[in-house]
Amino acid sequence: MQSNTDYIQNLIRDYPDFPKQGILFRDITPVFRDVKSLSLLGDFFYEKFSSIDIDYVAGIEARGFILATILGLRFNKGVIMIRKAGKLPGKTIRQDYSIEYGTAMMEIQSDSITKGDNVLVADDLLATGGTASAAANLIEELGGSVSGFAIIVELSSLGGSKLLQSKGYPVHPMVTYK
Amino acid sequence: MQSNTDYIQNLIRDYPDFPKQGILFRDITPVFRDVKSLSLLGDFFYEKFSSIDIDYVAGIEARGFILATILGLRFNKGVIMIRKAGKLPGKTIRQDYSIEYGTAMMEIQSDSITKGDNVLVADDLLATGGTASAAANLIEELGGSVSGFAIIVELSSLGGSKLLQSKGYPVHPMVTYK
Repeated sequence: MQSNTDYIQNLIRDYPDFPKQGILFRDITPVFRDVKSLSLLGDFFYEKFSSIDIDYVAGIEARGFILATILGLRFNKGVIMIRKAGKLPGKTIRQDYSIEYGTAMMEIQSDSITKGDNVLVADDLLATGGTASAAANLIEELGGSVSGFAIIVELSSLGGSKLLQSKGYPVHPMVTYK
Repeated sequence: MQSNTDYIQNLIRDYPDFPKQGILFRDITPVFRDVKSLSLLGDFFYEKFSSIDIDYVAGIEARGFILATILGLRFNKGVIMIRKAGKLPGKTIRQDYSIEYGTAMMEIQSDSITKGDNVLVADDLLATGGTASAAANLIEELGGSVSGFAIIVELSSLGGSKLLQSKGYPVHPMVTYK
């Protein structure tokens, strides 16, 4: 019998050398396009994080917004946006981070999180953990606690899960590639 | 008694001169952060579009992804991503468009839509209608039909609704500013 994880994994497509030479891109577009997958994603992470305190679900721009919304509705919690720098008005804080193919800066509105809020972070991909760690820094700088990381695809050889777990964060990837 | 539209509108914050001098930015971050709003958005657009054929909900990057996911789950349909150019692997088509403050290019995977698919387009903001029209062009170029536009905030003086309606598309903004 096909597991839910296999069902999701079978929808993911591989594109070698995208967006750059040497990168094997795992394309989850067909996962979001499949309505059964939207339910399975919600169910998977609900089970993984149901015993953990969560006040908000933060999505990392842009595909993380989709998973964050699925989980916000599933956990009955509001959705917070962690965006690429320059897109959020008002008072914000920023964090540099390095990614698999380059560097970038992310930003969050300072009043998105109040001291003591427990925030589940949602993103589509976990590679080195650079993006996830930067998101955690932003949440903690605002006085929040990271409930954990909900990840659709993990590239385990790049060490992201180990890095995050070494910092004490629960990490649950649905699909893991070596 | 406060209407659902008033409830959403009261959460929207105004930021003058963001991201550029002369632009009054309507910030919907607090709407997504509020879990009751996520339900109200789903209910509002479900009622508006419940009699129209919908096979997929397309979200326009990036905030449109959040509304598209709310509606995908509410209508029990898959979510399609219309992205900024360069982010989608595989065979794609692209469309130039002008926005309130500049120009840009959007892209969709060619196999996201099959001939005859009815696609509801979700975005946070409707200004001149340039973004929405470009999304409609992409959908129609792939043989799909546009079911309509689900919009959180419309800036009516910029004429987006009129433009889209003149092309025969149903348009439903939840909150309208002059």
